[in-house]
Amino acid sequence: SHSINLAVIPGDGIGQEVVAQGLKILAAVLPQDVKLETEEYDFGAKRYHATGETLTDADLASLKKHDAILLGAIGDPSVPSGVLERGFLLKLRFAFDHHVNLRPSKLLPGVATPLAGQPEIDFVVVREGTEGPYTGNGGTIRKGTPHEVATEVSVNTAFGVERVVRDAFARAQARPRKKLTLVHKNNVLTFAGHLWTDIFTKVAAEFPEVTTDYLHVDAATIFLVTDPARFDVIVTDNLFGDIITDLAAAVSGGIGVAASGNINPSGEFPSMFEPVHGSAPDIAGQGKADPTATVLSVALLLRHLGYETEAARVEEAVAADLTERGDSVRTTDEIGDALAARVAS
Amino acid sequence: SHSINLAVIPGDGIGQEVVAQGLKILAAVLPQDVKLETEEYDFGAKRYHATGETLTDADLASLKKHDAILLGAIGDPSVPSGVLERGFLLKLRFAFDHHVNLRPSKLLPGVATPLAGQPEIDFVVVREGTEGPYTGNGGTIRKGTPHEVATEVSVNTAFGVERVVRDAFARAQARPRKKLTLVHKNNVLTFAGHLWTDIFTKVAAEFPEVTTDYLHVDAATIFLVTDPARFDVIVTDNLFGDIITDLAAAVSGGIGVAASGNINPSGEFPSMFEPVHGSAPDIAGQGKADPTATVLSVALLLRHLGYETEAARVEEAVAADLTERGDSVRTTDEIGDALAARVAS
Ligand SMILES: CC(C)[C@H](C(=O)O)[C@@H](O)C(=O)O
Ligand SMILES: CC(C)[C@H](C(=O)O)[C@@H](O)C(=O)O
Repeated sequence: SHSINLAVIPGDGIGQEVVAQGLKILAAVLPQDVKLETEEYDFGAKRYHATGETLTDADLASLKKHDAILLGAIGDPSVPSGVLERGFLLKLRFAFDHHVNLRPSKLLPGVATPLAGQPEIDFVVVREGTEGPYTGNGGTIRKGTPHEVATEVSVNTAFGVERVVRDAFARAQARPRKKLTLVHKNNVLTFAGHLWTDIFTKVAAEFPEVTTDYLHVDAATIFLVTDPARFDVIVTDNLFGDIITDLAAAVSGGIGVAASGNINPSGEFPSMFEPVHGSAPDIAGQGKADPTATVLSVALLLRHLGYETEAARVEEAVAADLTERGDSVRTTDEIGDALAARVAS
Repeated sequence: SHSINLAVIPGDGIGQEVVAQGLKILAAVLPQDVKLETEEYDFGAKRYHATGETLTDADLASLKKHDAILLGAIGDPSVPSGVLERGFLLKLRFAFDHHVNLRPSKLLPGVATPLAGQPEIDFVVVREGTEGPYTGNGGTIRKGTPHEVATEVSVNTAFGVERVVRDAFARAQARPRKKLTLVHKNNVLTFAGHLWTDIFTKVAAEFPEVTTDYLHVDAATIFLVTDPARFDVIVTDNLFGDIITDLAAAVSGGIGVAASGNINPSGEFPSMFEPVHGSAPDIAGQGKADPTATVLSVALLLRHLGYETEAARVEEAVAADLTERGDSVRTTDEIGDALAARVAS
């Protein structure tokens, strides 16, 4: 395609600042003959306070027309916990069937990590995005009384598990090491655990070149800090994926550099790309936010839309910038400018 | 009490070896006038293969007569995943209402950690032990077909949450820093999240000296590697507790030194003490297992039974041993002997 019709959702807090840099890099890296159209949406805390709306059917219909979505961050302490998460972020992932939640972790030379000895880290987590304990199933009885019971239901389907496991095998197959680790807790969550394990084993037969491995989620957190080099591709459920990708981000340079894609591989709905970090209201508007995670999310967006060369250029620019940045203190805008200059050259 | 009537469950793999050291230290540290009686139970893979039994009603009745239980490790690759976990470990925690799953993390000087800069780590996780996604609720329909649906239900009650939150506040109150962090995922798991958060807030009013804090579980994993010093006491649900305590163990010296207590604070049922690590069949019978986690579990057992002086002596012996052990390679037995000598002197 020679045009990109992008929905842009700056959102709350530092979202506005980091998204501006993402767009700067996108404009700088795209070939001249690619027309970039953007439409900005005002989702987030401000709109919620003004209208009570988080994401309406009309919003979804409008978003659906775009080729992809770039999101900054959604969330503000003025909104009760859960309202924007369930009402916007998760609603969108579910409505647009973003079942492949892609989260790469790569520790670049020179980048600070809390781990001793600067281990090699280069893996990607394929987190299921539309099932598990994220479905909103469950409820509360006798609320506020000493007899309250609250349940959360993790829903797992063969359909939902198989498509994400298949996606993860294909990604593993395409990487040099060709290794896939299933992370679950099948010794305790035996119903869902059997489903995941059985499907994983079944699909594995179709990918004989891929080496497979299984880890309980608790053991996976140990290896993420003691031996992260062992991971190549990880596939896991929605909640385990949420937990281990924050840890993965922490050990591979921090959430300031962690990118993610909420992907609908069929293309029936636009995919959404966003930094893993939140809206960080404490530093919002001060030019202190690191736009790197958003810029790396733009690289995932480019790759998703078929601009592989450009995606790689953005990633190389970020790698060079991170390796050379040392202790320099730069504003959000300065980092964006530096990256834009690198991708343009 | 001037006698301890202990149930001993060596279990599988390295269980036998490490429990032997735990008993050695117990015998060495107890005052002469305390009579130590032990009864060994043969639970684990071997019995399961021989009889198909994991833990019978008669077993529970027999175990109930003891003052406490010392467990090595249960689990073997020859038994399908989940059978011994659900049929023994979890069955016992539930049958004996072990709702306070206590897991201290302390990084001792000189002990190896995967984290750079040898941070200060000294916190304790109070993990709920009888609710959450561990209840075995849920099920499977259309098993083995493309239309399979598997569910896992997290069950949370005001009764169950309040008693463990209260226990955690009391523990925080008794520590110098008096700080308690609730770890949950209340922005997504809103039913259970509200219950936990509401009860936490309510009980906090009774402990005005305790500083409180809330973290989503994903963010908690970040801080466990970037700033573990921020934690004093953590209270969390069964599954989140499972995950973060393995990570906590990894950063504070490894699961070779992580102890735990499955505690029934009312004393209605005997509490059980066990190392966090598993049966490690790959190194079983070779004298390679580190008995430190079991010995520290014995310290928790002693404290639980009111032998505070002896508990502290065991912990000091372990601290001294760890600090001085350097790169020396010692057998399981040698470490046990060294610790026994320290506590006796
Ligand atoms: C904000 C929250 C709903 C979200 C999640 O839990 O998925 C976030 O933690 C993430 O990882 O994208
Ligand atoms: C073996 C397993 C059932 C257990 C758990 O999940 O609680 C273990 O991981 C633990 O932490 O004690």
